Amino acid sequence: MKKKVLLLLGPNLNLVGIREKSVYGEVNAETIEDNVKKYGESIGIEVTVFQSNWEGALIDEIHKARTVYDAVIINPGALTHYSYALHDAIKGVSIPFIEVHMSNIHQREEFRHKSVTAPACVGQIAGFGAKGYDLALSYIAETEL
Amino acid sequence: MKKKVLLLLGPNLNLVGIREKSVYGEVNAETIEDNVKKYGESIGIEVTVFQSNWEGALIDEIHKARTVYDAVIINPGALTHYSYALHDAIKGVSIPFIEVHMSNIHQREEFRHKSVTAPACVGQIAGFGAKGYDLALSYIAETEL
Amino acid sequence: MKKKVLLLLGPNLNLVGIREKSVYGEVNAETIEDNVKKYGESIGIEVTVFQSNWEGALIDEIHKARTVYDAVIINPGALTHYSYALHDAIKGVSIPFIEVHMSNIHQREEFRHKSVTAPACVGQIAGFGAKGYDLALSYIAETEL
Amino acid sequence: MKKKVLLLLGPNLNLVGIREKSVYGEVNAETIEDNVKKYGESIGIEVTVFQSNWEGALIDEIHKARTVYDAVIINPGALTHYSYALHDAIKGVSIPFIEVHMSNIHQREEFRHKSVTAPACVGQIAGFGAKGYDLALSYIAETEL
Amino acid sequence: MKKKVLLLLGPNLNLVGIREKSVYGEVNAETIEDNVKKYGESIGIEVTVFQSNWEGALIDEIHKARTVYDAVIINPGALTHYSYALHDAIKGVSIPFIEVHMSNIHQREEFRHKSVTAPACVGQIAGFGAKGYDLALSYIAETEL
Amino acid sequence: MKKKVLLLLGPNLNLVGIREKSVYGEVNAETIEDNVKKYGESIGIEVTVFQSNWEGALIDEIHKARTVYDAVIINPGALTHYSYALHDAIKGVSIPFIEVHMSNIHQREEFRHKSVTAPACVGQIAGFGAKGYDLALSYIAETEL
Amino acid sequence: MKKKVLLLLGPNLNLVGIREKSVYGEVNAETIEDNVKKYGESIGIEVTVFQSNWEGALIDEIHKARTVYDAVIINPGALTHYSYALHDAIKGVSIPFIEVHMSNIHQREEFRHKSVTAPACVGQIAGFGAKGYDLALSYIAETEL
Amino acid sequence: MKKKVLLLLGPNLNLVGIREKSVYGEVNAETIEDNVKKYGESIGIEVTVFQSNWEGALIDEIHKARTVYDAVIINPGALTHYSYALHDAIKGVSIPFIEVHMSNIHQREEFRHKSVTAPACVGQIAGFGAKGYDLALSYIAETEL
Amino acid sequence: MKKKVLLLLGPNLNLVGIREKSVYGEVNAETIEDNVKKYGESIGIEVTVFQSNWEGALIDEIHKARTVYDAVIINPGALTHYSYALHDAIKGVSIPFIEVHMSNIHQREEFRHKSVTAPACVGQIAGFGAKGYDLALSYIAETEL
Amino acid sequence: MKKKVLLLLGPNLNLVGIREKSVYGEVNAETIEDNVKKYGESIGIEVTVFQSNWEGALIDEIHKARTVYDAVIINPGALTHYSYALHDAIKGVSIPFIEVHMSNIHQREEFRHKSVTAPACVGQIAGFGAKGYDLALSYIAETEL
Amino acid sequence: MKKKVLLLLGPNLNLVGIREKSVYGEVNAETIEDNVKKYGESIGIEVTVFQSNWEGALIDEIHKARTVYDAVIINPGALTHYSYALHDAIKGVSIPFIEVHMSNIHQREEFRHKSVTAPACVGQIAGFGAKGYDLALSYIAETEL
Amino acid sequence: MKKKVLLLLGPNLNLVGIREKSVYGEVNAETIEDNVKKYGESIGIEVTVFQSNWEGALIDEIHKARTVYDAVIINPGALTHYSYALHDAIKGVSIPFIEVHMSNIHQREEFRHKSVTAPACVGQIAGFGAKGYDLALSYIAETEL
Repeated sequence: MKKKVLLLLGPNLNLVGIREKSVYGEVNAETIEDNVKKYGESIGIEVTVFQSNWEGALIDEIHKARTVYDAVIINPGALTHYSYALHDAIKGVSIPFIEVHMSNIHQREEFRHKSVTAPACVGQIAGFGAKGYDLALSYIAETEL
Repeated sequence: MKKKVLLLLGPNLNLVGIREKSVYGEVNAETIEDNVKKYGESIGIEVTVFQSNWEGALIDEIHKARTVYDAVIINPGALTHYSYALHDAIKGVSIPFIEVHMSNIHQREEFRHKSVTAPACVGQIAGFGAKGYDLALSYIAETEL
Repeated sequence: MKKKVLLLLGPNLNLVGIREKSVYGEVNAETIEDNVKKYGESIGIEVTVFQSNWEGALIDEIHKARTVYDAVIINPGALTHYSYALHDAIKGVSIPFIEVHMSNIHQREEFRHKSVTAPACVGQIAGFGAKGYDLALSYIAETEL
Repeated sequence: MKKKVLLLLGPNLNLVGIREKSVYGEVNAETIEDNVKKYGESIGIEVTVFQSNWEGALIDEIHKARTVYDAVIINPGALTHYSYALHDAIKGVSIPFIEVHMSNIHQREEFRHKSVTAPACVGQIAGFGAKGYDLALSYIAETEL
Repeated sequence: MKKKVLLLLGPNLNLVGIREKSVYGEVNAETIEDNVKKYGESIGIEVTVFQSNWEGALIDEIHKARTVYDAVIINPGALTHYSYALHDAIKGVSIPFIEVHMSNIHQREEFRHKSVTAPACVGQIAGFGAKGYDLALSYIAETEL
Repeated sequence: MKKKVLLLLGPNLNLVGIREKSVYGEVNAETIEDNVKKYGESIGIEVTVFQSNWEGALIDEIHKARTVYDAVIINPGALTHYSYALHDAIKGVSIPFIEVHMSNIHQREEFRHKSVTAPACVGQIAGFGAKGYDLALSYIAETEL
Repeated sequence: MKKKVLLLLGPNLNLVGIREKSVYGEVNAETIEDNVKKYGESIGIEVTVFQSNWEGALIDEIHKARTVYDAVIINPGALTHYSYALHDAIKGVSIPFIEVHMSNIHQREEFRHKSVTAPACVGQIAGFGAKGYDLALSYIAETEL
Repeated sequence: MKKKVLLLLGPNLNLVGIREKSVYGEVNAETIEDNVKKYGESIGIEVTVFQSNWEGALIDEIHKARTVYDAVIINPGALTHYSYALHDAIKGVSIPFIEVHMSNIHQREEFRHKSVTAPACVGQIAGFGAKGYDLALSYIAETEL
Repeated sequence: MKKKVLLLLGPNLNLVGIREKSVYGEVNAETIEDNVKKYGESIGIEVTVFQSNWEGALIDEIHKARTVYDAVIINPGALTHYSYALHDAIKGVSIPFIEVHMSNIHQREEFRHKSVTAPACVGQIAGFGAKGYDLALSYIAETEL
Repeated sequence: MKKKVLLLLGPNLNLVGIREKSVYGEVNAETIEDNVKKYGESIGIEVTVFQSNWEGALIDEIHKARTVYDAVIINPGALTHYSYALHDAIKGVSIPFIEVHMSNIHQREEFRHKSVTAPACVGQIAGFGAKGYDLALSYIAETEL
Repeated sequence: MKKKVLLLLGPNLNLVGIREKSVYGEVNAETIEDNVKKYGESIGIEVTVFQSNWEGALIDEIHKARTVYDAVIINPGALTHYSYALHDAIKGVSIPFIEVHMSNIHQREEFRHKSVTAPACVGQIAGFGAKGYDLALSYIAETEL
Repeated sequence: MKKKVLLLLGPNLNLVGIREKSVYGEVNAETIEDNVKKYGESIGIEVTVFQSNWEGALIDEIHKARTVYDAVIINPGALTHYSYALHDAIKGVSIPFIEVHMSNIHQREEFRHKSVTAPACVGQIAGFGAKGYDLALSYIAETEL
């Protein structure tokens, strides 16, 4: 049976490709989502994407994910660095979460070095661009969750 | 005349009882709300419950509360620890707020030891489970606000 | 059978009502103790009060409380903020402690925001004046300890 | 051709004039918006006002502003001090932002001294009441953006 | 009657235009002063400029300003970040001060993020180049001091 | 009428003269007390000395001092650096306190640079040996308390 | 042509499987290396493993890697958290490095939250057990380095 | 001639064996004292035990020890972490002190990692249970003090 | 022979009496200087006053004082809190300095709690208004310098 | 059967006796090792000494010790204060470690107050010179490991 | 053509040789200046010395140096540790600066470990007494500036 | 007699010239060593170079240097910022050390601003490229060690 995975994208990740190309390169949000879905399909995972700039919407979605998905790949955008509410939401549901950042957050401003959500996740992948989502997917595909 | 009190619940408090039982015990969100309402009734207070995972929704509700309720019991969930916007909302209306936490936040992770909303409230009650809401209610019942 | 509760008051709490009325209001130490006892009686709890300005006396009393009382309500005064010895004493006996502060310590000087004793207690109540002791009592009355 | 400017107001700025008069004076939110619009008109700028207590709504609005306005005047309220998501949103669009605070934030509580959004803006104006919005407008009017 | 305003410039502001063009642009100190004076004149304010690299000279001038000017616009240069003596001088006289920085100090080195003089001023304007002085002047022109 | 002053000495001040001569010189505790009393007498002040190594005893004594003395000269010894209970005791009574240290605490170990009791006193005198007590006395003699 | 990758393992990674099973699970060092090599082979990458408990040996190896390998996967063990020398070594050679940790370092002791080597790498993968090495390999396989 | 040693035990050390067995094991306070005395006797040292929960009592005892004992073994309990008064007392007398902790304080809560009394002692022994007192004794026995 | 003392006053101390009466009371700079001189005369000390808002002038004066005065009473104003140059100047000459503050700096803003000059002085007197200068003088009069 | 113990000495401990006599006294490295071995023998313990200035060599030795020795006495020298790799090595093997420092590290420079290796050991002994090794040995001799 | 170098000396460096011989040795200010000039001459550099205790005078001199000298050797004295104004002055002119300290500032009080001016200079030389100036000169002599 | 000097180079200094040319310029490690030797020869100093990426090797070399060289010039590379073992090694031998950095470490990343080895050396030279080694040599040549 196909695994179902939610790709949960936080604030401003809809903007990728519009600006800050020095950070995110030439890809854009739409292409990224398409590629992740295609990659998922190729390894037997059905990927659903949900992007929101609203912390509350992300938390609601996490709560719903509990009974719908096998795992969640989350890029909380800047919420990574202060949203303890997101942290609690992840801790509050029982499916595994994988945190992905397109840029190498350990290389950017001081405030991006600390993730308050990572401790609630299985692990963190950072610095591999949109490819990071694929790495997370392939981990999910090959692991008994 | 009956006092009217708003019980305002922040992010993830709808999840209580689903998981993290080591922290919150066996109760669940629905039962808690019912019990608080019943307890309120028994001491002549009409309790309305509003839960949201959205900081903005909580602030809107606080603004509205100003002319509708005699007091607010607030459990801001993890927003307690960073939402200065919530702090300003509480300061911005003239009815009294009581902060309640089900768990003893002083006993958990470092980041939960500091409340940015408590300084805007009358006081804080933490560690008594759902019973904490009743304590807040009985304070409201017996005090001239 | 009547529950027996010790109300343990730390340094300077015998002075309440003499000065700093802006912080503690018009009540005085004696009235407070009387009221707590009366309130205890009204809900079937026998309250004994012990006040001391001596950290050592408080610790001795905590050790003795172990076999005499069902629970302790403690307001450690300023010791709250540095007496790790008090913290260890509370941890060292098996009956439940509830920390109460008359003022909202989260609203006062920086040094009062941190309690080193609260992590050893069931919970903390702060900001409700002498009424806070009653709240603690009613929690004890209604809870299986 | 008339310049178009968005005045973006964050949490609790709809409450101005209701309370905390010691901080904001006697003006109220509506009058302020009217005055800013009138002042804008008088110097050839069409001002649109958007207020929200929701971080997500503000981010959405910033994204939309990108292709609609020549510049944005933003008063993020308390989000100023922790919303890195707002910071990223501002950085993510290419029109200039000017941060305005009615009160002198450098004079208030410690937590208000640091702005996480200001580094993403052209500049910051603080302490001149509602007049600060006019100063921002007149800068926009006289500058080639 | 014409308002009289002192434009007080701290260390190195005489060097503007000589170097660090990436920070301050192509303008130079002389042109800036001329423009400010002209702008002042155009809105009925007589502007006097005093620049010094000497903290003591600036303090002396502030003391004298007390009985001579209606307001002071001050750009303390790097003294902004450590001269508590300047802070005390500003607090010590009764006319209003407006702090102006040409660059957006919130965007530069960590040490420039904190102003020890701003809390003694009416407000702070930063990031608008020499135009910032004009904004301060127009605030003074239109405000009852 | 003679003013009555309590000289309150904290932990280890009975040991002065026994050891650590590099810090306190050749005087000893007894001589110091005698000299202070004599000096008091010579300027019309009756000095009573109370030394204790017990924080609780010092607090009790402060409470009693309230109705007996015109002023208190206090050298809290090392309690200076952590006894918030002493701070609260001083704040809790209405007679003036003067803090005196024989050594220049600003010159010794880091932990001695901060006094938690000084903010509750009229002022602090440090570094003048036993002579510091006389300075405090002469201030009391010449000032309307 | 086959890509050549060095898997560089720091202090104590030879011990994996011997102890601390709560952290690393049942796998052992040998099996891990074999699996990584096999996985590499399966996607056309020749993996060489070098483990050392010696910081100097790791640095020497990094210097040599410069002309031998297409990329390096590095798990610096505890050196991650203090070896600036390793950081400089990575920065000093021009081939890409990927940092991998078997455990989720963001979930363990405070000192493990900060990596001084990650800023010199392309990215970081943490929390996926030995599978993390495969993720790194598959990234290298599919990316133009 | 027999050496005389004082074993000075701080707050809550009378409780050892009652609770917190995970920290202190199955021994109890009485047995510990007996064993230490016996061990002392066996190596020619007369051990006197003094336990108090009162900081002041401990300081008084230290002052008296000066002329009575050859050395002091001190376990200040939680006072270890904040009692600068105890530190000064130890520094104030000329006989050698050895600090002993039954548990490995470097392994427990952050606040226990720092000892303010150890710098005034000859050395510190921690983590060897009641056996630590014997180690201190055997050091005293074999060393010219 | 008469002792000669320099009273060295730092930035803004010429303003005393003009403003901030809540801090300094009703006295003014001139009266203070006159009183200090008179008091000095009454106890056989010739007092010279030097006030400057210029750190450099104060340092020059300290250098000159070396061969002219028996002692210096210094109130460095806000330079107290950051002028390490003043600290070095005091350390660089061999006559004794006494630091005096009119207000109780330990009671005011955080930044005033630390003195960088006090460690270079004999001692510090703070909180006794202009009377503090007299205390310093009387210490000088009665002490062999 | 004789217990076998490894005495593991870190960087610069071969230099003891050459210099810094104020810290380590007149003993030298060789004598120390001889004495420890002799003392071991006298209580039925075979002591092997391994000294290295190389962190890696120490880690290798720890790994080997796992199956050879009953316990390890370790003095990691300055590595105590930063070598998390050593910490992990100790945690990674199952035999007990005892940390010994010849000097009282709590009395020396700030950086020596914190041990990153002690939390991985049974306990820590500091300040008793070479005698500290004997104390550790006698603990091992008398304890069931 | 001879290179022209300014030796710029900050506060208290005129006092060298008068006191604090433990820090600066037996040389005095005059001899030092003479020697530097002579050494300069010997390697073809014309050295001009300017010493001032006034931060403002140093800044003025730096501004003037811009068009007069090939390089500046600066010993800012204690201003090194807080004068951001000096830092900005150095950055504001285009000739190279070399920071020299006679003592090894990294070995003295904590506050001397950080230089706020060094980042604006080519480099820093500390600990070689007056010889440090010669080292700076010889660097200037042999380097194309 | 010729002075003998050891030039001790730490981790990655063999890589100079390979990469990070923005930091170190076009020189390479070999040329640098040759030049230093030649310069040494020209002023009568025999220079031996020892480079290692191994902290332990550097410490061993320092120990050996004690009886072989007149002085050591050390560039500890990144070990500068954390190797307290290196610090202790330098302190442990009696010949003078001079710390040299090719880049201006005060201008680079925060972690490079602090040297833990400099306090054990005579002085520090930073920012003058390979020329810094010559400056150290010329100091050694002209100074009585």
